[in-house]
Amino acid sequence: MEKVILTGDRPTGKLHIGHYVGSLRRRVELQNSGEYDKIFIMIADAQALTDNADNPEKIRQNVIEVALDYLSAGLDPSKCNIFVQSAVPELTELAFYYMNLVSVARVQRNPTVKTEIEMRNFEGGSIPTGFFCYPISQAADITLFHGTTIPVGEDQKPMIELTNEIVRRFNHIYGEVLNECQVLLPENKACMRLPGTDGKAKMSKSLGNCIYLSDTAKELKKKVNSMFTDPQHLNIEDPGHIEGNTVFTYLDAFCRDEDFERFLPDYKNLDEMKAHYTRGGLGDGTCKKFLYNVLNDRLEPIRTRRKELESNIAEVYEVLRRGTEEARKVGAKTLAEVRHAMRIDYFDDKELVAEQQKRFNEQNK
Amino acid sequence: MEKVILTGDRPTGKLHIGHYVGSLRRRVELQNSGEYDKIFIMIADAQALTDNADNPEKIRQNVIEVALDYLSAGLDPSKCNIFVQSAVPELTELAFYYMNLVSVARVQRNPTVKTEIEMRNFEGGSIPTGFFCYPISQAADITLFHGTTIPVGEDQKPMIELTNEIVRRFNHIYGEVLNECQVLLPENKACMRLPGTDGKAKMSKSLGNCIYLSDTAKELKKKVNSMFTDPQHLNIEDPGHIEGNTVFTYLDAFCRDEDFERFLPDYKNLDEMKAHYTRGGLGDGTCKKFLYNVLNDRLEPIRTRRKELESNIAEVYEVLRRGTEEARKVGAKTLAEVRHAMRIDYFDDKELVAEQQKRFNEQNK
Repeated sequence: MEKVILTGDRPTGKLHIGHYVGSLRRRVELQNSGEYDKIFIMIADAQALTDNADNPEKIRQNVIEVALDYLSAGLDPSKCNIFVQSAVPELTELAFYYMNLVSVARVQRNPTVKTEIEMRNFEGGSIPTGFFCYPISQAADITLFHGTTIPVGEDQKPMIELTNEIVRRFNHIYGEVLNECQVLLPENKACMRLPGTDGKAKMSKSLGNCIYLSDTAKELKKKVNSMFTDPQHLNIEDPGHIEGNTVFTYLDAFCRDEDFERFLPDYKNLDEMKAHYTRGGLGDGTCKKFLYNVLNDRLEPIRTRRKELESNIAEVYEVLRRGTEEARKVGAKTLAEVRHAMRIDYFDDKELVAEQQKRFNEQNK
Repeated sequence: MEKVILTGDRPTGKLHIGHYVGSLRRRVELQNSGEYDKIFIMIADAQALTDNADNPEKIRQNVIEVALDYLSAGLDPSKCNIFVQSAVPELTELAFYYMNLVSVARVQRNPTVKTEIEMRNFEGGSIPTGFFCYPISQAADITLFHGTTIPVGEDQKPMIELTNEIVRRFNHIYGEVLNECQVLLPENKACMRLPGTDGKAKMSKSLGNCIYLSDTAKELKKKVNSMFTDPQHLNIEDPGHIEGNTVFTYLDAFCRDEDFERFLPDYKNLDEMKAHYTRGGLGDGTCKKFLYNVLNDRLEPIRTRRKELESNIAEVYEVLRRGTEEARKVGAKTLAEVRHAMRIDYFDDKELVAEQQKRFNEQNK
């Protein structure tokens, strides 16, 4: 069986370094590993609309931002298919048939759905039906491409379980067409979710605590300088805390041993630096300057590529168009198999007419 | 604005005279009235699958039965488009966007949905998500064809109200693309819902109380002879009751004054016959024989046409294929308008690239 990755993002804003550390960096590694036969990266605009129905302009402006972030971070259209979800209508058709296989109660029990609904705090508790059903839609996203490997965080595991439940139920009723998939968890626990620059659990546009992949060096410096560290570390000589100190959390996610030689030769590696900070005598300013240098080193090439890409927007859309075309081709094939298994391919089903003609002839003898 | 009818049936069994009286006969009249610009008749196999997911063969075998019933009852493919729902994927795409505009709570409040769910008595109360969402799907069925006129019974009014709610919400957010529709109620209250031959409220395959359009004369005679009448009418000379007497309910729905001249010249019309039955002296046997003759007169031509059609099943599928093609053509046009209004037609949106290129150029100056 082919090894196929399916993953993606909702285009509700530019991607930040939390996305980079949590998924994008890994995707580029997986893409370059040569271990996968096909990689589909979906810009999930249709999913984003499920809770942004009244703000389509936001989605429209962010499809290009996400595409630019993808390409500048190193996703390579010659190695992976970047496509736009709403332009693959096969996905909605497949999701529709899956909706017959999952009860309302089953969706309600899904812990990821529960959390997501709570997070969004829908007006008057009125969840849009589309949002409520997005786990089913996600099962279609994965299975339309015969996805085998889904790189997600621990919190998304119940979604993948639902997908596999749907696969088993479909295959049981209609015959073996779909394959189950596996979660590919992040290798590094620290990389799973980067906190905001203010130390809050999550980077969020509305909290203004994100560092974007597209930030300028100046913006980056300003954001790093204002970062949350250890509120008890008032004087340089005081002992400092690493736990919950956002500067060190970011360093955990980004810095490499060789960064010390270049930017902070007083230490060989992060452990030595942490030890000094813990026992006291290392100031936040020095730490932040180092973090800025490390981050800037990682983001500079991304920023440069982005500028180039931004000068030819038409070409970026052309990349998306080609990726979408390929996604539709693969999707149409799966959907034909699905429709055949469900026996609703009346106009392509050569046995059907012969079989029914025979039955009527016998009845009318 | 064009006058467009959208209506249809779920292919879960052959059509019976309840369907004929409740909708099919009217459709033929509407079709022949020349008052409508377009008529779409949908064989709702996808909707039927929402609560028959584990029995696809039933749907597969009944698409042709419903098509045969339609054509033999007088629907004329040169005047109306008969199409297969699942073969118009534009419907699922549209329904998907509508799902973002309707809350779960709003669907739950719909009285028609409540009744339908109760009727079906789903195992462990586990309603399939697809079934739960079928009112939204129905809104897509109507609006994809810019339906203006929906011939349904009183009980379906809340469904049409939901459709119009969706239309208003869509137009409010995305701009005027969709039109509201109107219910076309049956002219004759008595024709709204024919009881079963056993007097039970509804004809149902599982109760075995249906007279099918495709029944032979012999089957018809047997069913009429076993019909429920007035259980207190034991002797011919006893006064009989009309109310709740299925034979008279059927006569109300089917017989015309001229039938008396041909089959029961003792009376001029149904009122005279009813009066005699009420005062006593008219036997159930005579009434049933008359009803048989009336029904057989109506069904004979349908039966004959059906036999002809049954000898060329391939041609019937060809009619469906052509109707479906036309439905897709109209549907694709609406969907393009919808996607344009939602601003998710990225690859066809000529302004988008220019507008965004300008924005990036200004940013990067």
